[in-house]
Amino acid sequence: MRRGRFITLEGGEGSGKSTQAALLAEDLGAAGHDVLLTREPGGAPGAEDIRGLLVTGSVGRWDPLTEALLHYAARREHVLGAIAPALDAGRWVVCDRFADSTLAYQGWGHGVPREIIAALHEAVVGDVCPDLTLILDLPVDAGLERAAARNGGEDRYERMDSAFHERLRKGFLKIAREEPGRCAVIDATASVEAIRMEIRKTVGQRLGVQLS
Amino acid sequence: MRRGRFITLEGGEGSGKSTQAALLAEDLGAAGHDVLLTREPGGAPGAEDIRGLLVTGSVGRWDPLTEALLHYAARREHVLGAIAPALDAGRWVVCDRFADSTLAYQGWGHGVPREIIAALHEAVVGDVCPDLTLILDLPVDAGLERAAARNGGEDRYERMDSAFHERLRKGFLKIAREEPGRCAVIDATASVEAIRMEIRKTVGQRLGVQLS
Repeated sequence: MRRGRFITLEGGEGSGKSTQAALLAEDLGAAGHDVLLTREPGGAPGAEDIRGLLVTGSVGRWDPLTEALLHYAARREHVLGAIAPALDAGRWVVCDRFADSTLAYQGWGHGVPREIIAALHEAVVGDVCPDLTLILDLPVDAGLERAAARNGGEDRYERMDSAFHERLRKGFLKIAREEPGRCAVIDATASVEAIRMEIRKTVGQRLGVQLS
Repeated sequence: MRRGRFITLEGGEGSGKSTQAALLAEDLGAAGHDVLLTREPGGAPGAEDIRGLLVTGSVGRWDPLTEALLHYAARREHVLGAIAPALDAGRWVVCDRFADSTLAYQGWGHGVPREIIAALHEAVVGDVCPDLTLILDLPVDAGLERAAARNGGEDRYERMDSAFHERLRKGFLKIAREEPGRCAVIDATASVEAIRMEIRKTVGQRLGVQLS
Protein backbone atom coordinates (compact mmCIF):
# COMPACT_ATOMS: atom_id res chain seq x y z
CA MET A 1 0.00 0.00 0.00
CA ARG A 2 1.25 3.49 -0.84
CA ARG A 3 2.05 5.72 2.12
CA GLY A 4 -0.46 8.55 2.52
CA ARG A 5 0.47 12.22 2.19
CA PHE A 6 1.15 14.54 5.09
CA ILE A 7 0.06 18.21 4.86
CA THR A 8 0.64 20.71 7.67
CA LEU A 9 -0.79 24.23 8.09
CA GLU A 10 1.36 26.75 9.91
CA GLY A 11 1.21 30.42 10.82
CA GLY A 12 0.64 32.88 13.64
CA GLU A 13 -2.43 33.36 15.82
CA GLY A 14 -5.65 34.13 13.95
CA SER A 15 -4.27 33.25 10.52
CA GLY A 16 -7.16 30.88 9.80
CA LYS A 17 -5.25 27.58 10.01
CA SER A 18 -8.00 25.63 11.77
CA THR A 19 -10.70 26.82 9.39
CA GLN A 20 -8.60 26.05 6.33
CA ALA A 21 -7.43 22.69 7.67
CA ALA A 22 -11.08 21.63 8.03
CA LEU A 23 -11.93 22.88 4.52
CA LEU A 24 -8.91 21.15 3.00
CA ALA A 25 -9.84 17.88 4.73
CA GLU A 26 -13.33 18.28 3.29
CA ASP A 27 -11.98 18.95 -0.21
CA LEU A 28 -9.62 15.96 -0.04
CA GLY A 29 -12.47 13.77 1.22
CA ALA A 30 -14.68 14.93 -1.65
CA ALA A 31 -11.88 13.93 -4.03
CA GLY A 32 -12.07 10.38 -2.64
CA HIS A 33 -9.14 10.42 -0.20
CA ASP A 34 -9.38 8.95 3.29
CA VAL A 35 -8.33 11.87 5.54
CA LEU A 36 -7.24 12.27 9.15
CA LEU A 37 -7.78 15.86 10.29
CA THR A 38 -5.73 16.55 13.41
CA ARG A 39 -3.97 19.34 15.30
CA GLU A 40 -1.10 20.25 17.61
CA PRO A 41 -0.45 20.45 20.43
CA GLY A 42 -2.66 17.41 20.91
CA GLY A 43 -4.14 14.96 18.45
CA ALA A 44 -3.65 11.86 20.63
CA PRO A 45 -4.85 11.16 24.20
CA GLY A 46 -1.54 11.80 26.03
CA ALA A 47 -0.75 14.74 23.77
CA GLU A 48 -4.08 16.36 24.63
CA ASP A 49 -3.19 16.03 28.34
CA ILE A 50 0.06 17.89 27.66
CA ARG A 51 -1.80 20.50 25.55
CA GLY A 52 -3.65 21.59 28.67
CA LEU A 53 -0.32 22.58 30.26
CA LEU A 54 0.72 24.61 27.20
CA VAL A 55 -2.25 26.65 26.03
CA THR A 56 -3.67 27.82 29.34
CA GLY A 57 -2.26 29.69 32.34
CA SER A 58 0.02 32.69 32.67
CA VAL A 59 2.15 33.87 29.74
CA GLY A 60 5.35 33.35 31.73
CA ARG A 61 4.31 29.97 33.07
CA TRP A 62 7.17 28.05 31.42
CA ASP A 63 10.79 28.58 30.56
CA PRO A 64 11.07 28.52 26.70
CA LEU A 65 13.13 25.31 26.66
CA THR A 66 10.63 23.61 28.99
CA GLU A 67 7.95 24.62 26.55
CA ALA A 68 9.86 23.17 23.58
CA LEU A 69 10.28 19.88 25.53
CA LEU A 70 6.56 19.75 26.31
CA HIS A 71 5.67 20.40 22.67
CA TYR A 72 8.00 17.62 21.53
CA ALA A 73 6.66 15.25 24.21
CA ALA A 74 3.14 15.88 22.87
CA ARG A 75 4.40 15.55 19.28
CA ARG A 76 5.98 12.18 20.07
CA GLU A 77 2.62 10.81 21.25
CA HIS A 78 0.85 12.38 18.27
CA VAL A 79 3.28 10.98 15.68
CA LEU A 80 3.36 7.47 17.18
CA GLY A 81 -0.31 7.28 18.10
CA ALA A 82 -1.99 8.98 15.16
CA ILE A 83 0.09 10.45 12.30
CA ALA A 84 2.45 7.55 11.46
CA PRO A 85 -0.27 4.85 11.67
CA ALA A 86 -2.56 6.90 9.40
CA LEU A 87 0.18 7.49 6.81
CA ASP A 88 1.15 3.80 6.92
CA ALA A 89 -2.48 2.89 6.26
CA GLY A 90 -2.44 5.05 3.13
CA ARG A 91 -4.51 7.88 4.64
CA TRP A 92 -3.90 11.58 4.04
CA VAL A 93 -3.10 13.57 7.17
CA VAL A 94 -4.02 17.26 7.47
CA CYS A 95 -2.49 18.75 10.60
CA ASP A 96 -3.21 22.16 12.11
CA ARG A 97 0.34 23.11 13.29
CA PHE A 98 3.37 20.80 13.51
CA ALA A 99 7.12 21.11 14.12
CA ASP A 100 7.57 24.45 12.34
CA SER A 101 5.48 26.03 15.10
CA THR A 102 8.04 24.96 17.71
CA LEU A 103 10.87 26.40 15.64
CA ALA A 104 8.94 29.65 15.09
CA TYR A 105 7.49 30.11 18.59
CA GLN A 106 10.14 28.70 20.92
CA GLY A 107 13.07 29.17 18.51
CA TRP A 108 12.61 32.48 16.69
CA GLY A 109 10.07 33.87 19.17
CA HIS A 110 11.67 32.92 22.49
CA GLY A 111 15.31 32.28 21.62
CA VAL A 112 15.73 28.55 22.22
CA PRO A 113 18.88 27.67 20.20
CA ARG A 114 18.02 26.23 16.83
CA GLU A 115 20.44 23.31 17.20
CA ILE A 116 18.66 22.17 20.37
CA ILE A 117 15.32 22.16 18.55
CA ALA A 118 16.92 20.31 15.61
CA ALA A 119 18.31 17.63 17.95
CA LEU A 120 14.89 17.21 19.62
CA HIS A 121 13.26 16.98 16.20
CA GLU A 122 15.65 14.30 14.97
CA ALA A 123 15.15 12.16 18.11
CA VAL A 124 11.38 12.56 18.35
CA VAL A 125 10.02 12.82 14.82
CA GLY A 126 12.73 11.11 12.74
CA ASP A 127 11.65 10.89 9.11
CA VAL A 128 7.94 11.71 9.48
CA CYS A 129 8.27 14.86 7.39
CA PRO A 130 5.35 16.81 5.87
CA ASP A 131 5.03 16.44 2.09
CA LEU A 132 3.64 19.97 1.98
CA THR A 133 3.49 22.81 4.53
CA LEU A 134 1.10 25.69 3.92
CA ILE A 135 2.26 28.81 5.77
CA LEU A 136 -0.67 31.18 6.26
CA ASP A 137 0.77 34.66 6.47
CA LEU A 138 -0.85 37.90 7.56
CA PRO A 139 0.10 41.04 9.49
CA VAL A 140 0.39 40.47 13.24
CA ASP A 141 -2.27 43.03 14.24
CA ALA A 142 -4.90 41.54 11.94
CA GLY A 143 -4.20 38.03 13.23
CA LEU A 144 -4.35 38.98 16.90
CA GLU A 145 -7.62 40.85 16.31
CA ARG A 146 -9.19 37.76 14.74
CA ALA A 147 -7.80 35.49 17.45
CA ALA A 148 -9.23 37.71 20.21
CA ALA A 149 -12.67 37.51 18.60
CA ARG A 150 -12.87 33.71 18.77
CA ASN A 151 -11.76 33.03 22.36
CA GLY A 152 -12.25 29.84 24.35
CA GLY A 153 -9.71 30.15 27.16
CA GLU A 154 -6.81 28.60 25.19
CA ASP A 155 -5.19 31.99 24.69
CA ARG A 156 -1.85 31.76 26.45
CA TYR A 157 0.18 32.37 23.28
CA GLU A 158 -2.12 35.13 21.99
CA ARG A 159 -1.47 37.10 25.15
CA MET A 160 2.29 37.31 24.48
CA ASP A 161 3.51 40.76 23.31
CA SER A 162 3.38 41.89 19.69
CA ALA A 163 7.20 41.97 19.31
CA PHE A 164 7.06 38.21 19.99
CA HIS A 165 4.41 37.75 17.30
CA GLU A 166 6.47 39.79 14.82
CA ARG A 167 9.48 37.53 15.45
CA LEU A 168 7.51 34.41 14.85
CA ARG A 169 5.93 35.76 11.65
CA LYS A 170 9.46 36.42 10.36
CA GLY A 171 10.45 32.95 11.58
CA PHE A 172 7.75 31.26 9.53
CA LEU A 173 8.73 33.24 6.41
CA LYS A 174 12.36 32.28 6.95
CA ILE A 175 11.39 28.59 7.17
CA ALA A 176 9.48 28.99 3.89
CA ARG A 177 12.52 30.55 2.20
CA GLU A 178 14.83 27.82 3.50
CA GLU A 179 12.62 24.93 2.40
CA PRO A 180 10.80 26.08 -0.75
CA GLY A 181 10.28 22.48 -1.91
CA ARG A 182 8.19 21.65 1.15
CA CYS A 183 6.64 25.03 2.02
CA ALA A 184 4.20 27.37 0.28
CA VAL A 185 3.28 30.79 1.69
CA ILE A 186 -0.43 31.57 1.43
CA ASP A 187 -1.72 35.16 1.70
CA ALA A 188 -4.08 34.90 4.67
CA THR A 189 -5.47 38.44 4.35
CA ALA A 190 -7.88 37.22 1.66
CA SER A 191 -11.41 35.89 2.30
CA VAL A 192 -11.94 32.37 3.64
CA GLU A 193 -13.20 31.20 0.25
CA ALA A 194 -10.31 32.84 -1.67
CA ILE A 195 -7.76 31.23 0.66
CA ARG A 196 -9.50 27.89 0.21
CA MET A 197 -9.15 28.21 -3.59
CA GLU A 198 -5.48 29.15 -3.28
CA ILE A 199 -4.86 26.11 -1.06
CA ARG A 200 -6.72 23.80 -3.48
CA LYS A 201 -4.55 25.07 -6.31
CA THR A 202 -1.32 24.72 -4.31
CA VAL A 203 -2.13 21.21 -3.07
CA GLY A 204 -3.12 20.20 -6.60
CA GLN A 205 0.11 21.51 -8.15
CA ARG A 206 2.46 20.30 -5.45
CA LEU A 207 0.98 16.87 -4.77
CA GLY A 208 -0.53 16.10 -8.17
CA VAL A 209 -4.17 15.77 -7.15
CA GLN A 210 -7.32 17.33 -8.57
CA LEU A 211 -9.45 19.21 -5.98
CA SER A 212 -12.62 21.11 -6.79
CA MET B 1 29.16 33.83 48.84
CA ARG B 2 30.14 30.22 48.44
CA ARG B 3 27.85 28.10 46.26
CA GLY B 4 25.89 25.56 48.31
CA ARG B 5 26.28 21.79 47.95
CA PHE B 6 23.96 19.60 45.96
CA ILE B 7 23.20 16.06 47.20
CA THR B 8 20.89 13.66 45.35
CA LEU B 9 19.43 10.36 46.54
CA GLU B 10 18.77 7.73 43.90
CA GLY B 11 17.57 4.13 43.74
CA GLY B 12 14.63 1.92 42.85
CA GLU B 13 11.12 1.88 44.29
CA GLY B 14 10.91 1.34 48.06
CA SER B 15 14.62 1.87 48.67
CA GLY B 16 13.95 4.49 51.35
CA LYS B 17 15.10 7.58 49.45
CA SER B 18 12.37 9.91 50.71
CA THR B 19 12.82 8.87 54.33
CA GLN B 20 16.60 9.25 54.16
CA ALA B 21 16.41 12.54 52.25
CA ALA B 22 14.30 13.99 55.08
CA LEU B 23 16.66 12.64 57.76
CA LEU B 24 19.71 13.97 55.92
CA ALA B 25 18.10 17.40 55.59
CA GLU B 26 17.43 17.29 59.32
CA ASP B 27 21.03 16.28 60.11
CA LEU B 28 22.43 19.02 57.85
CA GLY B 29 20.11 21.56 59.45
CA ALA B 30 21.23 20.47 62.92
CA ALA B 31 24.82 21.05 61.77
CA GLY B 32 23.92 24.65 60.96
CA HIS B 33 23.39 24.46 57.20
CA ASP B 34 20.48 26.14 55.45
CA VAL B 35 18.85 23.26 53.54
CA LEU B 36 16.33 22.96 50.71
CA LEU B 37 14.72 19.50 50.76
CA THR B 38 13.12 18.77 47.39
CA ARG B 39 12.16 15.93 45.06
CA GLU B 40 11.66 14.87 41.44
CA PRO B 41 9.61 14.72 39.40
CA GLY B 42 8.35 18.01 40.85
CA GLY B 43 9.90 20.46 43.26
CA ALA B 44 8.62 23.61 41.51
CA PRO B 45 5.08 24.65 40.55
CA GLY B 46 5.20 23.76 36.82
CA ALA B 47 7.23 20.64 37.55
CA GLU B 48 4.58 19.42 39.99
CA ASP B 49 1.95 19.85 37.23
CA ILE B 50 4.06 17.65 34.95
CA ARG B 51 4.58 15.13 37.81
CA GLY B 52 0.86 14.39 37.75
CA LEU B 53 1.19 13.16 34.16
CA LEU B 54 4.11 10.88 35.03
CA VAL B 55 3.31 9.09 38.28
CA THR B 56 -0.37 8.25 37.77
CA GLY B 57 -2.31 6.41 35.08
CA SER B 58 -1.70 3.21 33.16
CA VAL B 59 1.78 1.66 33.01
CA GLY B 60 1.85 1.96 29.22
CA ARG B 61 0.52 5.52 29.17
CA TRP B 62 3.63 7.03 27.56
CA ASP B 63 6.20 6.08 25.00
CA PRO B 64 9.61 5.90 26.82
CA LEU B 65 11.06 8.87 24.92
CA THR B 66 7.95 10.96 25.67
CA GLU B 67 8.48 10.08 29.30
CA ALA B 68 12.14 11.17 29.20
CA LEU B 69 11.06 14.49 27.62
CA LEU B 70 8.44 15.06 30.31
CA HIS B 71 10.97 14.29 33.07
CA TYR B 72 13.45 16.75 31.55
CA ALA B 73 10.73 19.38 31.09
CA ALA B 74 9.92 19.06 34.81
CA ARG B 75 13.64 19.05 35.66
CA ARG B 76 14.18 22.28 33.72
CA GLU B 77 11.55 24.05 35.83
CA HIS B 78 12.95 22.51 39.00
CA VAL B 79 16.55 23.50 38.27
CA LEU B 80 15.70 27.07 37.19
CA GLY B 81 12.99 27.67 39.78
CA ALA B 82 14.41 25.99 42.86
CA ILE B 83 17.77 24.17 42.74
CA ALA B 84 20.01 26.76 41.03
CA PRO B 85 18.69 29.74 43.04
CA ALA B 86 19.17 27.80 46.30
CA LEU B 87 22.74 26.80 45.42
CA ASP B 88 23.53 30.36 44.32
CA ALA B 89 22.26 31.61 47.68
CA GLY B 90 24.70 29.27 49.46
CA ARG B 91 22.03 26.77 50.58
CA TRP B 92 22.47 23.01 50.60
CA VAL B 93 20.06 21.12 48.36
CA VAL B 94 18.95 17.57 49.20
CA CYS B 95 16.98 16.10 46.31
CA ASP B 96 14.98 12.87 46.30
CA ARG B 97 15.76 11.64 42.72
CA PHE B 98 17.42 13.62 39.94
CA ALA B 99 18.84 12.97 36.46
CA ASP B 100 20.25 9.49 37.24
CA SER B 101 16.66 8.30 37.61
CA THR B 102 15.92 9.24 33.99
CA LEU B 103 19.03 7.40 32.80
CA ALA B 104 18.13 4.35 34.90
CA TYR B 105 14.36 4.24 34.28
CA GLN B 106 13.95 5.49 30.72
CA GLY B 107 17.46 4.58 29.55
CA TRP B 108 18.43 1.25 31.13
CA GLY B 109 14.86 0.27 31.99
CA HIS B 110 13.01 1.22 28.82
CA GLY B 111 15.73 1.42 26.19
CA VAL B 112 15.84 5.13 25.31
CA PRO B 113 19.31 5.57 23.69
CA ARG B 114 21.83 6.89 26.12
CA GLU B 115 23.11 9.58 23.72
CA ILE B 116 19.61 11.07 23.46
CA ILE B 117 19.38 11.32 27.24
CA ALA B 118 22.89 12.81 27.37
CA ALA B 119 21.92 15.46 24.80
CA LEU B 120 18.77 16.34 26.75
CA HIS B 121 20.79 16.55 29.94
CA GLU B 122 23.37 18.88 28.44
CA ALA B 123 20.69 21.23 27.04
CA VAL B 124 18.44 21.24 30.13
CA VAL B 125 20.68 20.93 33.17
CA GLY B 126 24.01 22.23 31.92
CA ASP B 127 26.54 22.34 34.74
CA VAL B 128 24.17 21.95 37.72
CA CYS B 129 25.78 18.67 38.74
CA PRO B 130 25.32 16.96 42.12
CA ASP B 131 28.35 17.13 44.40
CA LEU B 132 27.34 13.77 45.85
CA THR B 133 24.83 11.13 44.77
CA LEU B 134 23.78 8.46 47.27
CA ILE B 135 22.51 5.35 45.48
CA LEU B 136 20.31 3.34 47.83
CA ASP B 137 20.56 -0.27 46.71
CA LEU B 138 18.43 -3.26 47.68
CA PRO B 139 16.99 -6.37 46.01
CA VAL B 140 14.05 -5.61 43.72
CA ASP B 141 11.53 -7.83 45.57
CA ALA B 142 12.24 -6.21 48.92
CA GLY B 143 11.87 -2.73 47.45
CA LEU B 144 8.60 -3.43 45.66
CA GLU B 145 7.18 -5.00 48.83
CA ARG B 146 7.99 -1.86 50.83
CA ALA B 147 6.67 0.41 48.08
CA ALA B 148 3.37 -1.51 47.91
CA ALA B 149 2.93 -1.07 51.66
CA ARG B 150 3.07 2.73 51.53
CA ASN B 151 0.71 3.50 48.62
CA GLY B 152 -0.94 6.84 47.76
CA GLY B 153 -1.95 6.40 44.13
CA GLU B 154 1.39 7.56 42.66
CA ASP B 155 2.33 4.00 41.77
CA ARG B 156 2.64 3.97 37.99
CA TYR B 157 6.33 3.01 38.04
CA GLU B 158 5.91 0.44 40.83
CA ARG B 159 3.41 -1.43 38.69
CA MET B 160 5.94 -2.05 35.90
CA ASP B 161 7.20 -5.67 35.71
CA SER B 162 10.07 -6.98 37.82
CA ALA B 163 12.40 -7.46 34.82
CA PHE B 164 12.14 -3.69 34.35
CA HIS B 165 13.04 -3.11 38.01
CA GLU B 166 16.01 -5.49 37.71
CA ARG B 167 17.31 -3.53 34.71
CA LEU B 168 17.09 -0.25 36.53
CA ARG B 169 18.79 -1.61 39.64
CA LYS B 170 21.69 -2.70 37.40
CA GLY B 171 21.56 0.70 35.70
CA PHE B 172 22.01 2.56 38.99
CA LEU B 173 24.95 0.32 39.96
CA LYS B 174 26.53 0.92 36.55
CA ILE B 175 26.20 4.69 37.02
CA ALA B 176 27.92 4.33 40.42
CA ARG B 177 30.80 2.35 38.85
CA GLU B 178 31.21 4.89 36.06
CA GLU B 179 31.26 7.94 38.34
CA PRO B 180 32.82 6.81 41.62
CA GLY B 181 33.90 10.37 42.47
CA ARG B 182 30.30 11.59 42.55
CA CYS B 183 28.41 8.44 43.59
CA ALA B 184 28.32 6.27 46.70
CA VAL B 185 26.30 3.04 46.94
CA ILE B 186 24.47 2.64 50.23
CA ASP B 187 23.20 -0.77 51.38
CA ALA B 188 19.48 -0.10 51.76
CA THR B 189 18.64 -3.49 53.30
CA ALA B 190 19.76 -2.18 56.72
CA SER B 191 17.49 -0.46 59.27
CA VAL B 192 16.43 3.15 58.79
CA GLU B 193 18.75 4.24 61.61
CA ALA B 194 21.72 2.23 60.28
CA ILE B 195 21.28 3.70 56.81
CA ARG B 196 21.08 7.18 58.32
CA MET B 197 24.41 6.60 60.08
CA GLU B 198 26.01 5.31 56.88
CA ILE B 199 24.78 8.39 54.99
CA ARG B 200 26.06 10.74 57.71
CA LYS B 201 29.46 9.08 57.48
CA THR B 202 29.52 9.23 53.68
CA VAL B 203 28.41 12.87 53.48
CA GLY B 204 30.95 13.75 56.14
CA GLN B 205 33.83 12.07 54.34
CA ARG B 206 32.94 13.16 50.81
CA LEU B 207 31.94 16.76 51.51
CA GLY B 208 34.10 17.50 54.53
CA VAL B 209 31.34 18.25 57.04
CA GLN B 210 30.70 16.96 60.55
CA LEU B 211 27.24 15.45 61.09
CA SER B 212 26.02 13.85 64.27
